[in-house]
Amino acid sequence: MAENPNTFLGGIVVKRDGGELAEDFYKHFMPSIASGEIPDYQVSAWLMAIFLKGMSSGETGAMTQAIARSGKIISFPHIKQATVDKHSTGGVGDKITFLVAPLVSACGVMAPLTAGRGLGHTGGTIDKLESIPGVRTQFTAEEMEGLLERVGWLICAQSKDIAPADGVLYRLRNATGTVSSLPLVVSSIMGKKLAVENDGLVLDVKFGSGAFFPEVEKARELSRTMVEIGKSAGRTCRAVLTNMEQPLGRAVGNSLELTEAIELLKGTRKDCPDVVEVTLALGAQMLIVAGLVNDEKEGRDKLLQAWGRGEGYDRLVAMVSAQGGDVSYLHQPQKFPQAKNVAEFKAPASGFITAIDARRIGELARRMGAGREYAEQEIDRSVGIVFRARVGEEVRAGEVLAVIYFNGVQKSEYVAELSGSITIGEQPPDQQPLILEVVS
Amino acid sequence: MAENPNTFLGGIVVKRDGGELAEDFYKHFMPSIASGEIPDYQVSAWLMAIFLKGMSSGETGAMTQAIARSGKIISFPHIKQATVDKHSTGGVGDKITFLVAPLVSACGVMAPLTAGRGLGHTGGTIDKLESIPGVRTQFTAEEMEGLLERVGWLICAQSKDIAPADGVLYRLRNATGTVSSLPLVVSSIMGKKLAVENDGLVLDVKFGSGAFFPEVEKARELSRTMVEIGKSAGRTCRAVLTNMEQPLGRAVGNSLELTEAIELLKGTRKDCPDVVEVTLALGAQMLIVAGLVNDEKEGRDKLLQAWGRGEGYDRLVAMVSAQGGDVSYLHQPQKFPQAKNVAEFKAPASGFITAIDARRIGELARRMGAGREYAEQEIDRSVGIVFRARVGEEVRAGEVLAVIYFNGVQKSEYVAELSGSITIGEQPPDQQPLILEVVS
Repeated sequence: MAENPNTFLGGIVVKRDGGELAEDFYKHFMPSIASGEIPDYQVSAWLMAIFLKGMSSGETGAMTQAIARSGKIISFPHIKQATVDKHSTGGVGDKITFLVAPLVSACGVMAPLTAGRGLGHTGGTIDKLESIPGVRTQFTAEEMEGLLERVGWLICAQSKDIAPADGVLYRLRNATGTVSSLPLVVSSIMGKKLAVENDGLVLDVKFGSGAFFPEVEKARELSRTMVEIGKSAGRTCRAVLTNMEQPLGRAVGNSLELTEAIELLKGTRKDCPDVVEVTLALGAQMLIVAGLVNDEKEGRDKLLQAWGRGEGYDRLVAMVSAQGGDVSYLHQPQKFPQAKNVAEFKAPASGFITAIDARRIGELARRMGAGREYAEQEIDRSVGIVFRARVGEEVRAGEVLAVIYFNGVQKSEYVAELSGSITIGEQPPDQQPLILEVVS
Repeated sequence: MAENPNTFLGGIVVKRDGGELAEDFYKHFMPSIASGEIPDYQVSAWLMAIFLKGMSSGETGAMTQAIARSGKIISFPHIKQATVDKHSTGGVGDKITFLVAPLVSACGVMAPLTAGRGLGHTGGTIDKLESIPGVRTQFTAEEMEGLLERVGWLICAQSKDIAPADGVLYRLRNATGTVSSLPLVVSSIMGKKLAVENDGLVLDVKFGSGAFFPEVEKARELSRTMVEIGKSAGRTCRAVLTNMEQPLGRAVGNSLELTEAIELLKGTRKDCPDVVEVTLALGAQMLIVAGLVNDEKEGRDKLLQAWGRGEGYDRLVAMVSAQGGDVSYLHQPQKFPQAKNVAEFKAPASGFITAIDARRIGELARRMGAGREYAEQEIDRSVGIVFRARVGEEVRAGEVLAVIYFNGVQKSEYVAELSGSITIGEQPPDQQPLILEVVS
């Protein structure tokens, strides 16, 4: 049936038939989606058509801008320095924000980070931060600016006023199997990012089993598209492609990850070289984007100096304190509520660890209660998995490979799932790059 | 993300990826769709995935059966003769039911017809019948059986108790551009038909511009699929492929079409050979399916004899009377409320009529008020178009080609639309077959 292209139904038919919608369509309908004027069942059919038929790059750009403008635009008129945000496409064990943001702040970058909650198999920075009693994550634009002036950085939850169309789209995508669509991922991430008027943005784009787009080529396309959109919106924008084949670091689960980040920042532990490496790679790009260093080497040196002097940890304490959190939890992470039960997973055979499937580990952590099956679900911040061994290491049968922290009685199920996620082989695996490339 | 195939979300992902769902999925979820337990936004995303990725014939069968079983099953335990239903896939000016049903009834077929309302550009039998004051179209199974025993045939609106899952699916398809999907059309039609336990079913499958599937090959596939599903459900089932390139007969619009049918059945007019031909073709198949004749020729002869003796008209009067309608409207169709305004559309040039676009005429009638833009809309039963000329006829410039009956003031718009729908050429068009073939 010929449908009127000026109605939302007409737009569904255009996407269904693989056509292209004009910029005006997105401009006109994103506010209506945000307000709930377009019924959910029409939006979800449209999302499925986009998932299956794609979008032109022009459409992706138009949709991103329209999502950004569907709500309030946050700006920091009194901040003179360059402000830089950092965003990860979502990983397992990804606690980099808690290291890189205070470190770049120590080096002089203004970093007003907006972050999300965990959904799907990946954790969320806000969920992890909220392990600290008292910490606030909802701020007005004025409050954000005040925090920047006093502390130099902050972590703010994406509020419902920012890019509200994305809130509707994300809820429907999650309920209709339309999450892993490149144009929908791009417009969702960049729509929220463009709603905050920063000068720069560094994207951590994951590839590997734990990423939403495991293939390197797809992650590369995602990077290029997002950087392009950031640039056309006048931002200095770079993407770093990082490996998410195995979980990042050793801990997976909210307060367990935060504890790992705190200890690495303090310098009281050194056993997560991958976390350090990704932190330095992203931090160096943030310094470049902020115009504070000329190249990656200079950026890494500056970050390592700040790290060595304990300035990163001081900045973390300052942020938590300014956001109302109880900093005694940073000084004594053992204060975080502990899971009731602990179980060890031991190597069933001797050999080399050839794989730890990040996606399955993320799904396991979610099932244990560390993540959500649906948007409003309460999560358990004490549960998770801490790995004693990593891909490439040689292990002996009976050696403890991971410790499971859990509440409830599903121990055998968790152990079975861990056993299926960790592969032991006779030969060491080929080394995979942790940082693949920078897209700018 | 790997989704659980036992959830509806898992089913969306399977269809999204072009996979096949097990019979159990349909059995399990159709009642949940009918009850509203599955949210509309999930159902509509699933429908779009089906629209774009299709369904196996096994799935189409399973979905059809599940739709049929989502509500009450109607049966006629006290009727010993074969009961036969007739169904059209939807056309413009299609008033065949009002002729063929009383005629086959006169020949001894028990015909409990269930029919729908108009939606999209096609009219609906129930809407047309309801032009007659007092007529009832909602019956319980017991009332239907009583009508069959007393009158031999009936026209009953598909009630909300019959195949309620289809009610939900149809509403969502109409709002999401997912109407013209072969498996969805098949399961919708046949799901409702299988919910009434008749012995036979004759399908009038349209092709041409006014059909939901204009291409002959698609209409053929639709016919085969429906006949196959009917047979596997134990029905004697046949489909007749009929031409819907131009409107059927001369009148388009509810009471105008009913008037044409009444006059043809009475024999007071003879100017619609196409209506007569389709009536005889479908009626002969209904007699064959009921086991009352051996071949089409015998069927046509029997129908023509009954027609000639006025028995079809008598049976129409009997049905309307038994269903509570005022039969004086059959005797004097001029009693139907008349549209306030009449406009003539005259040939802009001399030549041969090469096309009357049935789809555009159907859309025009809908816009004039004869049909619905949305499900609960009130319709205007007096408005419509009556053609004075038909495809293939030679006309002279200035000759009246059609008369528009309308309320309101949109005359020039209607005339312009008619002008765009009727094509006049210098050469007579190639003759197209009215009845293409029978699928059994």
